Amino acid sequence: MGVIVDIHGHYTTTPPGLGVYHDALHARLGSGATGPLPELPEISDDDIRASIEGNQLRVQRERGIDLTIFSPRASWMEHHVTDAATAQAWARASNDLVHRVTQLFPANFAPVCQLPQVPGGPLEPCMAELERCVTQLGFIGCNLNPDPSGGFWSSPPLTDDYWFPLYEKMTELDVPAMIHVSTSCNPAAHTLGAHYLNADTTAFMQLVQGDLFSRFPALRFVIPHGGGAVPYHWGRFIGLTNREKLPSIYDNVLGNVYFDTCVYHQPGIDLLTSVVPVDNILFASEMLGAVRGENPQTGASWDDTKRYIEAAKLTDGDKEQIFELNARRVYPRLIVR
Amino acid sequence: MGVIVDIHGHYTTTPPGLGVYHDALHARLGSGATGPLPELPEISDDDIRASIEGNQLRVQRERGIDLTIFSPRASWMEHHVTDAATAQAWARASNDLVHRVTQLFPANFAPVCQLPQVPGGPLEPCMAELERCVTQLGFIGCNLNPDPSGGFWSSPPLTDDYWFPLYEKMTELDVPAMIHVSTSCNPAAHTLGAHYLNADTTAFMQLVQGDLFSRFPALRFVIPHGGGAVPYHWGRFIGLTNREKLPSIYDNVLGNVYFDTCVYHQPGIDLLTSVVPVDNILFASEMLGAVRGENPQTGASWDDTKRYIEAAKLTDGDKEQIFELNARRVYPRLIVR
Repeated sequence: MGVIVDIHGHYTTTPPGLGVYHDALHARLGSGATGPLPELPEISDDDIRASIEGNQLRVQRERGIDLTIFSPRASWMEHHVTDAATAQAWARASNDLVHRVTQLFPANFAPVCQLPQVPGGPLEPCMAELERCVTQLGFIGCNLNPDPSGGFWSSPPLTDDYWFPLYEKMTELDVPAMIHVSTSCNPAAHTLGAHYLNADTTAFMQLVQGDLFSRFPALRFVIPHGGGAVPYHWGRFIGLTNREKLPSIYDNVLGNVYFDTCVYHQPGIDLLTSVVPVDNILFASEMLGAVRGENPQTGASWDDTKRYIEAAKLTDGDKEQIFELNARRVYPRLIVR
Repeated sequence: MGVIVDIHGHYTTTPPGLGVYHDALHARLGSGATGPLPELPEISDDDIRASIEGNQLRVQRERGIDLTIFSPRASWMEHHVTDAATAQAWARASNDLVHRVTQLFPANFAPVCQLPQVPGGPLEPCMAELERCVTQLGFIGCNLNPDPSGGFWSSPPLTDDYWFPLYEKMTELDVPAMIHVSTSCNPAAHTLGAHYLNADTTAFMQLVQGDLFSRFPALRFVIPHGGGAVPYHWGRFIGLTNREKLPSIYDNVLGNVYFDTCVYHQPGIDLLTSVVPVDNILFASEMLGAVRGENPQTGASWDDTKRYIEAAKLTDGDKEQIFELNARRVYPRLIVR
C-alpha cells in the first residue's frame, strides 16, 4: 500500500490564543470597528504541538493515515463578518497558524488556506492572501465559500463572472479549491446538519447548470461531505440534465470536480463509490470534525472513513487512487515526505 | 400483492385555463395588486380528463400503480408572492382543480392541498383553506412550505411556535403534511437540483434539533425526495445527535416523520431502505415530476421507483408496508376504492 492522504482536515483544536484573538476582533467589531486591530497573543510551538499531538496526530497514527491536507476551522472562517480589515487579519492569523502546524509536522500535514471573503466584497484581498500563502508559505489549495452570508445565499452562483478573477489566480498558481461554507447565521439551517450539506448540493448544481470549465479548463473544485445530497440522487441529476437539455455531467463537470469521502457510514460510502467514478473520489475524514464518537453497532468511530473504503467493493487499484493518486493529481503542489 | 399507493404526485399537466389564470393573477400583481381578482377561466371535465388520461393515468397503468396521492404542482405554489388575496385565490383554484381530478378518477387519485402561505404571514388563511379542503372536499393531507420566501430561508424553523396553530389544526383534522418547498427565487439555488433537496435536509435537521413531537404527538410529516441528503448521511446525523447531546433520532423524530422514495436510481433506494426503518418509508415516484426520460443503461424511466423497491433486498412484508400499509397509517383519511 502507498501513502494514505486525508484531503479534508481542519484545525479545530487551536490553542486558546487564537480564541482570545477571535474574541478581541469581535470586541472591536462590537464597538464600531473603528479602533486599531488587536494583536495576536503569543502562541508557542509547544502550544501548537500540544494541540495536535493528542488529537489529529494521535488519530492519524491510530487509523494509519499518513498525511492530512489541513486548513483553518471551517465554521470559524465567519465570512459573514462584513469588515474587510477583520476578514483579512483573521484569515492571515488562521492561515499562519496552519502554516506553523505544517512546519512542526511537515510529514503529517499539508496546508490549505482560508480566504478573507466578505459578502459581496471584492475578491482582490482573497487573491492576495492566496498568493501569499501559496508562494511564500507552501500552501497547496484554498477553501472557497460560495455563501459568505452564512445561510442567506446572497452571492451569485460560482459560475458568475464575479468569481473569475479568483479562478484566474487559482489557475495561475495551479491550486484547487474545496467549496466549503462556514457557520450558518440562519436559524433555519443548522451549520453541520444542514448548511454544509446544502452548500455542497447547491454548488454542484450551479456547476451542472453552467459552462465554467470550458472557460477555465484547469480549474479544480473539491465538493466535501461526499458531495452533499448529490451521489444519493445521482439518477435525479442525470435525469435533470436530460430534461433541461444540459450537457452531460460526465463531460461538463467531472473533469474538474471531485467528491471527498466524508460520509460517515458504510452504506453511504458504498453508494458514493458505486455511482461516482473512482477518478473523482478523494479520501477524507474531516477529523476532528463535525461528528465525534463511535457507532455502537461496530465500535468504530463514525468518522473513521478509511474503514469504509477498505470494506467497499473496490479493487486495490481503485483504493490507491482514492487514498493517494487522485490527491496528487488534484493537489499537484502536494509534497509527500 | 395489495394496493400500490404513490403518495407523491403533483398536477403538473393542468389544462391551459389554469395557466391563463396564473398569468392574470400576476398581471394584477404587476399593476399594484389593487384591482379585482381575475376570474378563473372555464375548465371543462373533458379538459381535465385529457390532461390526466395520457399522462399520470397512463403511467399508473404502465407501472401498476393503483392510486396517487395528488396535489397541486409544487413549483407553482409560489409562496414567495406576498399578496395574501392572490395567495388565497391561487391556492383555492389549484386545490379545486385537484379536487375535480379526484372526482373524475376517484379510484386513482386522492387529494392533498396547497396552503395559501405568504412569507412571514399569519397562518389563519392556511388553516381555513386546510379545513375547507379536508371537511368539504375530502382532502387527506397538505403540503407545507418551510421556506415561503423561495430560497432565502426567512421563516423560523418548523419547531418555532409560529407554526403551532397550523399543527393544532392538522392534529384536529388528523392529516399529515408533506414538507415541500416551491420554486426557488434565488439564483444560487436551482429549484429541482438544489432547493428541493436542501429543504428536505434542512427541515429534517430542524426536527432533530427540536422537541416538537412531545408537544404534538399525533403530528405527522413526510419528507419528500427520499429525505434530501439525510439517509446518505445517516451516520453523520446519528453522530451529530451524540455530539450535541440531542435525543435519539429514532425516539425523537421517527415516530412522526416519514421519507418518500423519490430517489431515482437503484443504489439510492438500496441505501434508503437499508438505513431508514421500513416503517418510515412511503412509496412515491413524483411522476410526472422533476425528472423525465429513461436511464439508457436500463431502458427504464428514471422515476419508475417501483422497480427499484421491487429489486431491493426487502421481504414481501416490507414491500407491502412501503407500497400500502404505511400510507394508510400516515394518511388515515385515505380511501382506497
